[in-house]
Amino acid sequence: MGMVDIIKKKKNGEALTKEEINYFVKEYTEGNIPDYQAAALLMAIYFQKMNQEETAFLTEAMMHSGKVVDLSAIDGIKVDKHSTGGVGDKTTIALGAMVAACGVPVAKMSGRGLGHTGGTIDKLESFPGFSVELSIDDFIHNVNDIKIAVVGQTQDLAPADKTLYALRDVTSTVDNLSLIASSVMSKKLAAGADAILLDVKTGNGAFMKEIDDSFALAKEMVAIGSKMKRDTIAVITDMEQPLGFAVGNSLEVIEAIETLKGNGPADFTELCITLGSYMLLLAKKVSTVQQGRAEMEKVISNRKALEVLKTFIERQGGDGNLVDNPELLPKAKNVYILKSNKDGYIHGIHAETVGLSALLLGAGRETKASIIDLSVGIVFRKKAGDEIMSGEPLAEIHYNDEVKFQQALEKLKSAYTIETDKPIVRPLVYGIVTVDGVERL
Amino acid sequence: MGMVDIIKKKKNGEALTKEEINYFVKEYTEGNIPDYQAAALLMAIYFQKMNQEETAFLTEAMMHSGKVVDLSAIDGIKVDKHSTGGVGDKTTIALGAMVAACGVPVAKMSGRGLGHTGGTIDKLESFPGFSVELSIDDFIHNVNDIKIAVVGQTQDLAPADKTLYALRDVTSTVDNLSLIASSVMSKKLAAGADAILLDVKTGNGAFMKEIDDSFALAKEMVAIGSKMKRDTIAVITDMEQPLGFAVGNSLEVIEAIETLKGNGPADFTELCITLGSYMLLLAKKVSTVQQGRAEMEKVISNRKALEVLKTFIERQGGDGNLVDNPELLPKAKNVYILKSNKDGYIHGIHAETVGLSALLLGAGRETKASIIDLSVGIVFRKKAGDEIMSGEPLAEIHYNDEVKFQQALEKLKSAYTIETDKPIVRPLVYGIVTVDGVERL
Repeated sequence: MGMVDIIKKKKNGEALTKEEINYFVKEYTEGNIPDYQAAALLMAIYFQKMNQEETAFLTEAMMHSGKVVDLSAIDGIKVDKHSTGGVGDKTTIALGAMVAACGVPVAKMSGRGLGHTGGTIDKLESFPGFSVELSIDDFIHNVNDIKIAVVGQTQDLAPADKTLYALRDVTSTVDNLSLIASSVMSKKLAAGADAILLDVKTGNGAFMKEIDDSFALAKEMVAIGSKMKRDTIAVITDMEQPLGFAVGNSLEVIEAIETLKGNGPADFTELCITLGSYMLLLAKKVSTVQQGRAEMEKVISNRKALEVLKTFIERQGGDGNLVDNPELLPKAKNVYILKSNKDGYIHGIHAETVGLSALLLGAGRETKASIIDLSVGIVFRKKAGDEIMSGEPLAEIHYNDEVKFQQALEKLKSAYTIETDKPIVRPLVYGIVTVDGVERL
Repeated sequence: MGMVDIIKKKKNGEALTKEEINYFVKEYTEGNIPDYQAAALLMAIYFQKMNQEETAFLTEAMMHSGKVVDLSAIDGIKVDKHSTGGVGDKTTIALGAMVAACGVPVAKMSGRGLGHTGGTIDKLESFPGFSVELSIDDFIHNVNDIKIAVVGQTQDLAPADKTLYALRDVTSTVDNLSLIASSVMSKKLAAGADAILLDVKTGNGAFMKEIDDSFALAKEMVAIGSKMKRDTIAVITDMEQPLGFAVGNSLEVIEAIETLKGNGPADFTELCITLGSYMLLLAKKVSTVQQGRAEMEKVISNRKALEVLKTFIERQGGDGNLVDNPELLPKAKNVYILKSNKDGYIHGIHAETVGLSALLLGAGRETKASIIDLSVGIVFRKKAGDEIMSGEPLAEIHYNDEVKFQQALEKLKSAYTIETDKPIVRPLVYGIVTVDGVERL
């Protein structure tokens, strides 16, 4: 089997066999196939696509390119949640505690943020002392004991995906459904999930800007899950404006805590309840989504999820008292109130622009080597659809550095669209994709 | 300007600017753009194509990537001939002498053979002592003096083409019209041609197997010539069976000499006369193709072309007496007569298979490092369309090594298609492409 023949075959629009895909992934990961041949194949895949079978073969090959985590020592069905990434997405923190509070194991491998979206680990590190450096034994023990643990994604998880992604990034071959879907799913499968809930974001702040593309990606990933015998459900949710009110690490943690107290923003609370209800369904804890919703609402109202969060933070070295006293979390020195300069309705708060504004403040990483400021960020007072009068506050900017603040302020202003007519507000949830089909809401 | 943006632009089907193409060629040749990005761009070009303007920009950039030969010290219009390569194609040897004998300068840079097609330099080296290692001054002096000189292609001619071609070869991106056309034309232009005659082969032994593809390539190259202000004409000729009777270095030289004496094979003689007449037209030596044909026929019948060949061989260190006594050229120890085992008509002699058979005998190079045997080869007694009786000779195999002979014999036998019905014989010339349009014959 030669790599030139494999490239030619895909170039001519033929489907690759399992053997050919395995050969490519194995030999490329081991450094026996040069980058230029991999790049040519990726571009051929971009144009000729891969069918669902090829995509599943690719996923499986990448999953097995490194260590596959064995979570069988954890009792129950391990449901992993994956979000395709967004601005203000602190879901894992609140949702993880809620699901764990229902007795369903949450064994989570998370990553750090890059670019305009934040990472769960960075946010959790707002708790001084908190660490994701757990041994696999401690990780499993914690999940069995308190139903939740979060560990950093190890280097040896799906290394083929890491290598290929880096190449796609510099060869303009990122935007192909099969490549995106297999990248996400190979990591989830290698992380040992029994079932997978996907939060596929759609809108300007998401990887997929268009709704139809988001559904197509969801279908592709659900198909892979099905072929790999993992129950998989995808929820397509809005990322045209930031999620909730807070953007920035400790600000988002505070919002997650408030949500577990029942004081969270309507959109974020609703997202947690929706995603959680499907996770309970996948874990076979409930038999209908409605039952799942009821369970989710219960663990908020009886404060059980809040308790779980506190225990979880403490178990991983953090100061649990900050859950009770979130005002002690890292705090920026200055807060600026951005006010509207006209009357009208907020038609949009451009999520990607907000993410970039937070990045300018220091809340995110421009490169992998950047050091982030946990305390800075933005807290919205109004969201899309809200009426606003001239002089009324739109948002707070929490900052430590005057120069960064000025840049972030200009950027944030440009995120707003304010018009005199009442806008049509986008829904939070666009639909559900399961192996049985697509339900558009 | 970033390479990722250039790849993305082409991937999305946009035309690249002159600046972008220049940037790519320059930086890639200098090693500042990695192979994997070049490979991704080449594959994107394969799918999205390049328009004629982009192709001309690419050609010009590759032409200027190394030295551009200045032939202005040679009197007259320098017409370069290029063949896309075939089996038994000894055209340059006979045609060069014929055109020079008409007083038109032939300043030729040639290459060596690789794979199933031979190279002009290898063939000429059948004359002991003959050398293509001329200084540029001697080269120019010889052309001014005797109207013909052949020099080896220098390494610094269009180095970008050399680098890109090597990458295309291993990334399955050879078969794109713009890339093929720019590769050929950049070398011709760098070699200093004022006008270019292209012999675009079509058939199984050619780079382009299909007639329509051959016309398309011809059009692409003529368009580049026109944009680069070089008069360019393409003749589309057959390469479904070998050209002439002889395949193999000294055997082809003998055939070229015989052709200059008026005893050449009909197809090869006709090809030389046709190509030569267009070369005289491009050199403005004649004003019609008919006048060109008359000139060509004259230099055969008055032996002037034969005299030029002798002088040319001597001037470059070879033994001119061998032109008068071609039986003294390198000769194989053994000759085997392949006979037909049935009655019928020859429907085809598969050119590529014949080329591979000659390669097995040792007449060609499998790799660049192979040493070739100048004396071995095949001489046909019959060609496609000829009637043959069982037991009658089909061809001679000239060989030195028994093992190689057996392999070559089996291969050669498989080249024949002999049927009982009379075949329709393919024409020698399919058409002419000029800047004014396409004439199909």
